[in-house]
Amino acid sequence: MPTLPTYADVVHAAERLEGHALKTPLLHSPALDEIAGAEVHFKAECLQHVGAFKYRGARNRLGAMSEAERARGVVAFSSGNHAQGVARAARELGIDAVIVMPSDAPQVKVAGVLADGARIISYDRATESREQIAANIAARDGRTVVPSYDDPHIIAGQGTIGLEIARSGLEFHAVVVCMGGGGLCAGITLAMAEESPSTHIFGAEPEAYDDHRQSLRAGERVRLSGAPPTLCDAVMTPMPGELTWPINSRHLQDVFAVTDEQCLRAMRLAHEHLGVTVEPGGAVAMAAVMEGKLLGRYGRVAVTLSGGNVDPAVLERALAG
Amino acid sequence: MPTLPTYADVVHAAERLEGHALKTPLLHSPALDEIAGAEVHFKAECLQHVGAFKYRGARNRLGAMSEAERARGVVAFSSGNHAQGVARAARELGIDAVIVMPSDAPQVKVAGVLADGARIISYDRATESREQIAANIAARDGRTVVPSYDDPHIIAGQGTIGLEIARSGLEFHAVVVCMGGGGLCAGITLAMAEESPSTHIFGAEPEAYDDHRQSLRAGERVRLSGAPPTLCDAVMTPMPGELTWPINSRHLQDVFAVTDEQCLRAMRLAHEHLGVTVEPGGAVAMAAVMEGKLLGRYGRVAVTLSGGNVDPAVLERALAG
Repeated sequence: MPTLPTYADVVHAAERLEGHALKTPLLHSPALDEIAGAEVHFKAECLQHVGAFKYRGARNRLGAMSEAERARGVVAFSSGNHAQGVARAARELGIDAVIVMPSDAPQVKVAGVLADGARIISYDRATESREQIAANIAARDGRTVVPSYDDPHIIAGQGTIGLEIARSGLEFHAVVVCMGGGGLCAGITLAMAEESPSTHIFGAEPEAYDDHRQSLRAGERVRLSGAPPTLCDAVMTPMPGELTWPINSRHLQDVFAVTDEQCLRAMRLAHEHLGVTVEPGGAVAMAAVMEGKLLGRYGRVAVTLSGGNVDPAVLERALAG
Repeated sequence: MPTLPTYADVVHAAERLEGHALKTPLLHSPALDEIAGAEVHFKAECLQHVGAFKYRGARNRLGAMSEAERARGVVAFSSGNHAQGVARAARELGIDAVIVMPSDAPQVKVAGVLADGARIISYDRATESREQIAANIAARDGRTVVPSYDDPHIIAGQGTIGLEIARSGLEFHAVVVCMGGGGLCAGITLAMAEESPSTHIFGAEPEAYDDHRQSLRAGERVRLSGAPPTLCDAVMTPMPGELTWPINSRHLQDVFAVTDEQCLRAMRLAHEHLGVTVEPGGAVAMAAVMEGKLLGRYGRVAVTLSGGNVDPAVLERALAG
């Protein structure tokens, strides 16, 4: 098992990302405070380069590669945001990138990957294994596989969001984080545990993919079966990560599960009151807070808006209310 | 004539705004770079508290008031963004606020003012003088009039945007700024002239309200006649300000004029590629750059997105393309 990332890795990642990743704002709206029953500040990673926090981890991972590794290229698999993060970081660093994407990935994410010059290999989410396809390509070309969460550099890169929250000048009593494989939450947890240890950490997931919630209750990693449909393509993960789980399970207070409809409502509220576009999977933490999951329990809360790449039809559905 | 604000006033304003105004991000999209023919970073003041840069000036102005002045309250006139900035700053500082607003102000701006607890006095843009109404209220109640641009504290507050651009870690060859009364541009100019003197400053206005462009060509302040319709309610100003003009006229390279249709296109591009909502008047600088006004002339350009408060019907029209 690879070594777990540490707080020092997050600090190192922040140095590596300086001048590259955007320091995203904490957006605030009194109208949303009233709905949430708390003073809520939204960490708007939907404004990050490529429209999602994934750029941070990808840039940190690729930035740590040797010249020899860079020359042989990278391969990644992802429904879209990690794909775009890897494609952008690869372009910036002059690395050739191949991305394995499901055939039903949102068009906006496919377009983003192609615009950054990466090649796409499509697969069928129901019948093929993206891990196997990527492993085969890696073995054939000598490419480095860039995992979307189970990697110390990826987790450390996402953790820079936690540093920015902890160093914002505001003291937060709780943080609520969108969870897929748990990389974002693990990174933020590493940063907060060191810089703001009294802050409580909560996760949020789609109801149909509540593997962290179930795992937390079972006291061990639970793997979900089946692949139920959800609008939250960015967080369709059946099981907590091997590296992320040991970090998250030690610190998570609880994990909230939300419906697609609650995510659509959160997207509408983000549009109306914050002026930003959020995708369904990037809205799960906001949805939990807007449903009153923390009502009256904490004074000031930070919530991740982890991505904003949504196809127009889904956004229209959200805004129609 | 009141004293002109200086660079030192901008630095002082930044201290006063610390922990209050949001340090907004500079958003970037390779797709927009291609359209503009330059590397363009968008200063997203549409994400500022109340959805517009006006919060900065208002907070700085009200923050500079004495206890005795605060107790007597403030009065301001504005089509909406300055109104909301004053209402929010007043609420934060415990000051009673009356806002004189045109009867055709966007509903979203009226709602914002009311939500922050300010009282509204409506007037008819065509037949009444908002200056006179505000002056009467000020005389009657002893309230302080908070002008929307012709005030040293207001200009200095907006200038903190220039400090953030100059201190972003990126060197900009040009800045393009939305112009109504010229307060935003004057403030940014004070900051840039000191911290990045080689950066060229450009303004942008709606074609129907190109008073700065005409004034620059005439070599003196020109007052436009009539009140032609425009979607850019935030920048319907007939004449450069008394305080803003001496600053802007010394530094402006040129002023671009754009049509409503060009602003709507810029709003759509901001939505698609940056994930933010911009209002027509907040999109004039972006519209100028997206129309290729700087094509190939500068390597790296900063552009203000000065506000994002737009009624749904106008936003829909923009997104429909």
